[in-house]
Order: sequence, then structure tokens, then C-alpha cells
Amino acid sequence: MLMLDRIRENELINSLAKIFPRSPYQVNALHGSDSEIIRIPGASGQTLAATIDTIAEEIRTGLYTDPWLIGWMTVMVNMSDLAAVGASPIGILVSEIIPPDFSAESRERLQKGILDACTACGTFVLGGDTNAGSPLSTGGCGLGLLPEGSLLSRTECAKGDRLYTSGYLGDGNAFAASRLIAKTPLPYTYQPVARLREGSVVRHFASCCMDSSDGVLATLDQLMRLNGCGFSLGNVWEKALSPQSVRTSLELGIPPWLLLAGEHGEFELIFTIPPSREKAFLDEAANIGWAPLRLGDVIPTPEIRMFLYDYEFAIDTEEIRNLGSSSLGPIEKYLKSLLEIDFRLRQGRTIV
Amino acid sequence: MLMLDRIRENELINSLAKIFPRSPYQVNALHGSDSEIIRIPGASGQTLAATIDTIAEEIRTGLYTDPWLIGWMTVMVNMSDLAAVGASPIGILVSEIIPPDFSAESRERLQKGILDACTACGTFVLGGDTNAGSPLSTGGCGLGLLPEGSLLSRTECAKGDRLYTSGYLGDGNAFAASRLIAKTPLPYTYQPVARLREGSVVRHFASCCMDSSDGVLATLDQLMRLNGCGFSLGNVWEKALSPQSVRTSLELGIPPWLLLAGEHGEFELIFTIPPSREKAFLDEAANIGWAPLRLGDVIPTPEIRMFLYDYEFAIDTEEIRNLGSSSLGPIEKYLKSLLEIDFRLRQGRTIV
Repeated sequence: MLMLDRIRENELINSLAKIFPRSPYQVNALHGSDSEIIRIPGASGQTLAATIDTIAEEIRTGLYTDPWLIGWMTVMVNMSDLAAVGASPIGILVSEIIPPDFSAESRERLQKGILDACTACGTFVLGGDTNAGSPLSTGGCGLGLLPEGSLLSRTECAKGDRLYTSGYLGDGNAFAASRLIAKTPLPYTYQPVARLREGSVVRHFASCCMDSSDGVLATLDQLMRLNGCGFSLGNVWEKALSPQSVRTSLELGIPPWLLLAGEHGEFELIFTIPPSREKAFLDEAANIGWAPLRLGDVIPTPEIRMFLYDYEFAIDTEEIRNLGSSSLGPIEKYLKSLLEIDFRLRQGRTIV
Repeated sequence: MLMLDRIRENELINSLAKIFPRSPYQVNALHGSDSEIIRIPGASGQTLAATIDTIAEEIRTGLYTDPWLIGWMTVMVNMSDLAAVGASPIGILVSEIIPPDFSAESRERLQKGILDACTACGTFVLGGDTNAGSPLSTGGCGLGLLPEGSLLSRTECAKGDRLYTSGYLGDGNAFAASRLIAKTPLPYTYQPVARLREGSVVRHFASCCMDSSDGVLATLDQLMRLNGCGFSLGNVWEKALSPQSVRTSLELGIPPWLLLAGEHGEFELIFTIPPSREKAFLDEAANIGWAPLRLGDVIPTPEIRMFLYDYEFAIDTEEIRNLGSSSLGPIEKYLKSLLEIDFRLRQGRTIV
């Protein structure tokens, strides 16, 4: 766990979990997959996928203000964790801490966001609970099913595998910048849909998978630490950015590659496909009308390499990830730190 | 739902849930049981029990201050919901919002409380998530299993059934009074253990069951509204109060019957047994070394009747329950309202 522990978030999770024994029914290891995978005693053929995730920081920082979006994201962050293990959703339980001054109209928008996200995912609210309190926060526990023995984990990729993303990247951080960095908030469409259908295809072909909920470089960094191998993105990453995100980053004077570095994700699946299965995978993807985007290759050395400013760099993703969890401070400071890293790269100080 | 809706908490839940369609796999109705019961497609013989519950108000009001107790209760409130449907726990997922100034020692105590409660319930932490934020709040999603077709719900009791509690009542509210009403906090042992073993016996015999997490009269009131019948407690309720709770209430000048009225529960199971099954039930309970306490009878009229001050009253549980959810204000005001109800009873104004 030494390499994992160099990331503050992993260190926190390890310290919180260290005294807990594992359930004999639990299939996945700690950090091993986006959802917990649990054998159901007496129910052969099916395993349960379960995940819990709360929207609190995004409300506190002012990133999410529209109650509809808060409801939508409460469902999607959990459904995305189910998608990343290839599970089919059963439903979600929702927990809400509602401030006394939260209007009836806001409450209705919150519930509508939850409903719309469930409908988009073909799933249901199974139950919930409410507390009176402040500030607003909303959490969910997503439940799904997986055929036994078909776990899609984070930990089986190998040198030579092809790196893919389920769709365009960059919208999570461009949305955050449009809300928090722009002097007056820019209009920006941010409404991620969990990649459940895609996950159920990926499950049959991929060697590892994880969603990009914490940002793309954080996802790749975590996969690197778990697998002991690295990723080479070449120039390919540029074509994987959504046109909307590039436009907004340029408008705000933010170098586009930082759309991969920021910690607010786009909830795409990042996964690796062994070359021998690549054709069959792409055929099956085409069958459901989906065009996965190539993002690079798995390399034997534990590095994240990409072309920037005409040079190939090994990005210090440890530094980037630890900016996030240490920055309970203002977003401007976080962005300034990212821009400093970009400045150092442009100065060529960390060329490998 | 008219009768249910006269309770503000039910009204809130109904308004939050009204736009959500039910999952075709969901067995229980809204309000119908303490946990959600879900058929597992493709897994014959087993159904899933799931519940979500967050500890926020108890922290905000200063009722829970010890991080160990907060951890313990995070698990127990969820396990108690599983116990009330007779489920066997699979485990719990935990979500924590942790303030920046929460010390490492406090965090360790919180996690120790979670672990100790899981150990006491023979269950496991399956996963979790953390957010940085303030104030501290902790939530859990409890998961369990039930043999198919053996749902223990809140809604099948009938006139003539015997009312039972799994153990002594009163500790929840006496603890709250010892912490919040006493000028200097009194020592009080409050460490409820979810009645999982007892629930798995109750499941085979009871006509309805619900835990007393919101207080005993609130539980009975809810069962009354759901079943359209009432409960007569006679004088029996006095013997069902824990000696510790009676001592503390008298020391604080609080009439002991208010230990049933307050909204902080003791997490016992409140259930009804048809007379034809009573002997077999008591035999089976004795087999596991458990002595359930008789609390009264199911009566045909929708009333909660009990002897107080040598008279039999029908208690206005609607008024009592609505004090709670309307009192985001100080505890003193809530207690004053309860004492006013007691005063009116003693004046004989509501004698039936």
C-alpha cells in the first residue's frame, strides 16, 4: 500500500478502514473496484454491487447550487460507481439533510432531479431518510446486480493493453471553472449520465475499469498505483476533450490539459482492453450504437506520459492529486497551484 | 393516507416520495416496513432488505457528542431497521462528513464505535465514503437478507393480538433528558443493541413489528394509523420502563410516562402476536434466552389508551408527535410542551 498511501485521499481511506475486518462474503479488495461486490449467500448466480456517495463538498463550495442538479448528481455519482463494475442497477436509497429555510419549490426541484436521473438510468428510488439540518447535503446508496464471477475491477490491466474512455472528457472541470473561476458564471451544460449500458459491455472485454469521478489524471494515477504499470496518452488526449470544455477553458485562460488534472470529474468510464479482444469489443460497442474513444496505451513503467507543448512529459500526478485533498481553501488557490505546475512544465523543468 | 398525513413527518415523507414510481421488485409499500424489501431477480429464495439512516440531528442538538457513540449509533440505527423486518445483516456502507478540525483521536474513536457495533451485530463494514465538511454527520446503509415470502411488516395486526416489546423502554428519552435537560449532564448508560436475534424469532410469529427509534408512542401511533386499530397499555407500561430511566426521570422532575412520549427512542422492537401463536412464540423466545415484555393489547378503536394518575386516558399522540418535527427550537421548549400535555391530563381535561 506504500504507493497508494502517497495520495492523501488513499491515506485517509486506509486509516479509516484499517481496523475493519473484511466480510467473508466480500469479493473485492479495498480500493479494488468502484463498487463493493458481495456474494449473496444462498443465491447462486448473482452477486450484489453496492456503493455509497454523498454530495456535500460540491454544495459547500458553491459548485452545485441548482437543487435539480444536486438531485441528479446524487443519483448519478452512485450509478456511475455501479457502471464501473458493469452492474445492472436495482435502485437507490437516498438520505437528505434539509435546512429549515429550504423552500418547498427547492425541495420539489431536488426530488425532480432525483427522479429524472433514475428515469435516465432505468432505475428506482427504493427508500430514504431525511434529517433537519444545515447545510444541505444529499447522499445515496446505489444497489445493483452482477452475474457471479464477472467482476470488473480496477486491478487487472497489463502492458500493451489499450486505454479507452467511454466518451468525451473535460466537462466536469470546465463546468467547475465556468461556475467558480469565471467572474460571472458562464452558461455550461453539465448533466452527466452514468455509463451503465456501456459498463455492461466493458465488463465482457476490459482488463480494468474505473470512473473518472475525481478527474481523469486522478483516475489514471490510481490505476497506475493499483496495477504497477503506467499510461501513455501521447497526443491522443487532445481529441478526447469535449469541444465545449476546450472552448470554455480557452475563454478562461486555462490550458486545456488541466481539464484532465482538476478534481471534478465527468463520470466517464476509463478502462483498458487487451489487444486480442479489441476488435470484438469495438464490434460489440458499435452494436449498441456507442463509439468509445481511444485515450492511449498501458506502459510497463508507472508513469503518466503525455505530449504537452511539443514535448512528452511524465506528469507528477501525485502532486496534482494532493493539491485537491489539501485545498479546503478557496478555488482560486487550487487553480493557481495547477497553473504553477503548467508553468513549470512550460519552463521545461520536469521534462523526462 | 389521510390519517398518516396528519403527522408532519409522514406528510414530509409522502411529499418527498410522491413523484417516485415504485420498483417492480419492491415488496413493501411506502411506510409499510422499517426496511425496504426487494426481490432479487434471478436469485430465488432470498430477498434483500435495505435501509438508510443518517445521524445529523442528534449531533446538531448536542445529544451525541462522544465520537464513539456516534459511530456506534450509525451502525445500530440501521441494524435496528433490519431487525424490525427480521432480516439477517450482510453489512453496512458508511458515509461520513468530517469537519477539518475533527482530531485524529476523534476519528479513531468514531471508527472504533462503528467497529464495536458491527462486532456486536456480527456484521461488517462493506465500504464507505468521506466528505470534508461541517458539521460532522455520519450515515449508513444497512443491507440484509430475508428468506423469500417471510416479510415482517408493520401492517398485519388485528384486534385481540397481544402487544409486546423486545426489552425495557425509556432509556432513549431518559438519556436525552440526562444530557440535555439536566443542568449538568448526569451519567447515563445508553448503548442500544439492535434486536437482530430477537427479530429473527419475531418474524415467525408476529402480525406486525416496528422499532421504537422515534419513541414508543410515536411507534404505536404509526402502527395505529397503518392498521386502523389501537392499543391499550393499561398499567402494564409502568413495568416495561427500565429502572434506570425511571430513576433519572424522577430525579429531573419528569413524569415517567413521558419516557414513552419523547422522540428519542431506545431501539427496541414493538410487535404484536396473535393469541393463537403466543405460547409457541414465548417458548421459542425462551429457547434463545430472551424474555419479551408484555406491553398491552390491540383494540378495535384507533386510540392509544393507558392508565395515568388512576384514570384511563386516550392519549393525543398526534399532538405529541407533531411537537417533535415542529421543534427545531431548543429542547426546553419541547419538554415544556410535553409537560403541558401532562398537566392537562392531570387536570382531567382529556379524560375519555
